[in-house]
Amino acid sequence: MASSSSTIYHATATAPVNIAVIKYWGKTSTKLNTPTNSSLSVTLSQDDLRTITTASCSAAFKSDGLWLNGDTHDVSGARSQACFAELRALRKAKEDNDPSLPPLSTYKLHLISENNFPTAAGLASSAAGFAAFVRAIADLYELNESPTELSRIARQGSGSACRSLFGGFVAWEKGIRDDGNDSVAIQIAPESHWSTIRAAILVISDAKKGVSSTSGMQATVATSTLFPNRASIVVPARMEAMKKAIIERDFETFAELTMADSNSFHAVCLDTVPPIFYMNDASRAAVRAVEEINRCAGKKVAAYTFDAGPNAVIYYDEENQDIVLGPLKKATANTPGWPDKYSHINTTLPEGFNEAALTPLSGSISRVILTGVGPGPLEVPKEMALIDAAGNPKPAP
Amino acid sequence: MASSSSTIYHATATAPVNIAVIKYWGKTSTKLNTPTNSSLSVTLSQDDLRTITTASCSAAFKSDGLWLNGDTHDVSGARSQACFAELRALRKAKEDNDPSLPPLSTYKLHLISENNFPTAAGLASSAAGFAAFVRAIADLYELNESPTELSRIARQGSGSACRSLFGGFVAWEKGIRDDGNDSVAIQIAPESHWSTIRAAILVISDAKKGVSSTSGMQATVATSTLFPNRASIVVPARMEAMKKAIIERDFETFAELTMADSNSFHAVCLDTVPPIFYMNDASRAAVRAVEEINRCAGKKVAAYTFDAGPNAVIYYDEENQDIVLGPLKKATANTPGWPDKYSHINTTLPEGFNEAALTPLSGSISRVILTGVGPGPLEVPKEMALIDAAGNPKPAP
Repeated sequence: MASSSSTIYHATATAPVNIAVIKYWGKTSTKLNTPTNSSLSVTLSQDDLRTITTASCSAAFKSDGLWLNGDTHDVSGARSQACFAELRALRKAKEDNDPSLPPLSTYKLHLISENNFPTAAGLASSAAGFAAFVRAIADLYELNESPTELSRIARQGSGSACRSLFGGFVAWEKGIRDDGNDSVAIQIAPESHWSTIRAAILVISDAKKGVSSTSGMQATVATSTLFPNRASIVVPARMEAMKKAIIERDFETFAELTMADSNSFHAVCLDTVPPIFYMNDASRAAVRAVEEINRCAGKKVAAYTFDAGPNAVIYYDEENQDIVLGPLKKATANTPGWPDKYSHINTTLPEGFNEAALTPLSGSISRVILTGVGPGPLEVPKEMALIDAAGNPKPAP
Repeated sequence: MASSSSTIYHATATAPVNIAVIKYWGKTSTKLNTPTNSSLSVTLSQDDLRTITTASCSAAFKSDGLWLNGDTHDVSGARSQACFAELRALRKAKEDNDPSLPPLSTYKLHLISENNFPTAAGLASSAAGFAAFVRAIADLYELNESPTELSRIARQGSGSACRSLFGGFVAWEKGIRDDGNDSVAIQIAPESHWSTIRAAILVISDAKKGVSSTSGMQATVATSTLFPNRASIVVPARMEAMKKAIIERDFETFAELTMADSNSFHAVCLDTVPPIFYMNDASRAAVRAVEEINRCAGKKVAAYTFDAGPNAVIYYDEENQDIVLGPLKKATANTPGWPDKYSHINTTLPEGFNEAALTPLSGSISRVILTGVGPGPLEVPKEMALIDAAGNPKPAP
């Protein structure tokens, strides 16, 4: 199209939420957002949880801006600025090589972003948010950098965002370079490798905002006497075992490692001065319910994990859907989030199931989200953009 | 007195509860009851918490027996038997040296024991119980062994019982010998050294029985990847720092170490497979209340610690009684356990105190026990014995 000073360039992308099975907790550099240990996550389906972001720029825009779910957000912070600067530098290099390109790198950016899930639910919205932010600007700038190269940029916005640039099973390798440039995400396996991995998310009712993960993890690094061993010894061994479990689609090992690493992460939180508690009595009730499901099944068919909040994410393989979801549905039957397609799930507990293990869960869950492994960021057709012709935000369709 | 085949010999002793500030968690030998790390405790006043035990023996008794709070208890287990055997061997050696002594080592033992607090409250009753058991039999046998020598025996009954053979501030040194004979308690300082140390115990309402400490600690040893570092590195350093803090009556350091070690212990419980949870939401509410008391005071005036259960033990120095107990009394005003002598405590919160920090505590505490540091086992006059003339249990006076 012909460009004029009022031309608005835009591209729109979505990005997924990821939930780690080997947890990121602790930075070696708060400036570079480099982690004390590698981590590994499952990317969740965007049908259920995703951020959509339109990145737009124009010579007519007066300042950089971000609108999230209709509200303006500050982009003057070091993290957003680092992402802007890195992406503009890549664009600038393209423009220097090809002077026919419009000088988008010199234009102010407007970013309009919407989540299809409540931000307040305490899910990992910042990961999806920064991944969509970076992906959309990269698309706008027509950058050819690989997702791993873009993950280096997204990492500077929000550490775990780097893992949301891929679908499937994704490692964030901590890297060894002082400049952090090898601290990037790589895909261990695409979602098609193990497409039967599902996740039931139990959103805990009383999810009061706890310590932010940014300040919490640095308190752990500074004060926990158990933490150095976790970062330097425990996690590196678990990373290798987890990669193998995923490659071999070995759910039992995947489950054992996932639960152990979640508990290890919350243990070093508790060992922080002052102690950080993210799990509450309802979280522990979810742990006990999963333990009873596994005990009754005679093997690990479900694996809980908890991020920096009380919500439980329970991974399972679709082949065990009935024995995992049956008890969870029984405990949360009147809770929003059970779509019709799960109406066939039988809530009759199997022989020998200790129903008392479910009691504490009932009444403490406000919402259930049933989802599964999914793809990485997706480009969205231009007509779906979240801006109107004048470059102003419009609601997501 | 002249002895006949029906003569009943008896002695009665009391023993205190102790609450560790550096925690015992993990055995190197389950047979010897030797710990993976040294520990350190404060002995609590027997005015509030004590076990009284009458040890009696007679040629007329048919079998060894134990009555606790009126109920018979099994003494055939390896732990009780180990204590019986050790004490009888010491008595036998005395009898061999002095054939005029009655052959008590050959008689069956009847032990009658009463607690002045509810066993169900989840306090450390087994420590007081085995300490009183050993002390009373030692008195009955007129043994001259020191409390440290007796602690070696009590340790075999219940690990932490060895610390209840002393008053004041007591270390259980793990020892290095394979036979465990140097795994004994020593007194770091008597109660008179720092007699102003007080303890407020918040008994949590919903104190369901969790994993027993005996099985829990061995699960931790077997499965926690963070535990070895705690046992071999973290605790040894804390033991030395804690001894110094006690010798110097440095409450702030005492408080920091106490809270850090409680959290470290619960962290390795959480890092166990499957995870062990002793603290619940009410426990965490107690943590937050103590943190707010300390924040508002501008220094550490209170220190929480949690054993293998949800109850909070809060240590403080008497000089800070009002600023520590005021907020706790406000939060638990209608809870049993506030004696008249605390009626002067002002529950008006100090300027700047965040009252919301107390809200979660209200309604979750079933009983408050206000006590302080106290002496070790005491011998009780013969007329206070818990047996009648026929050698049968009678209730404590």
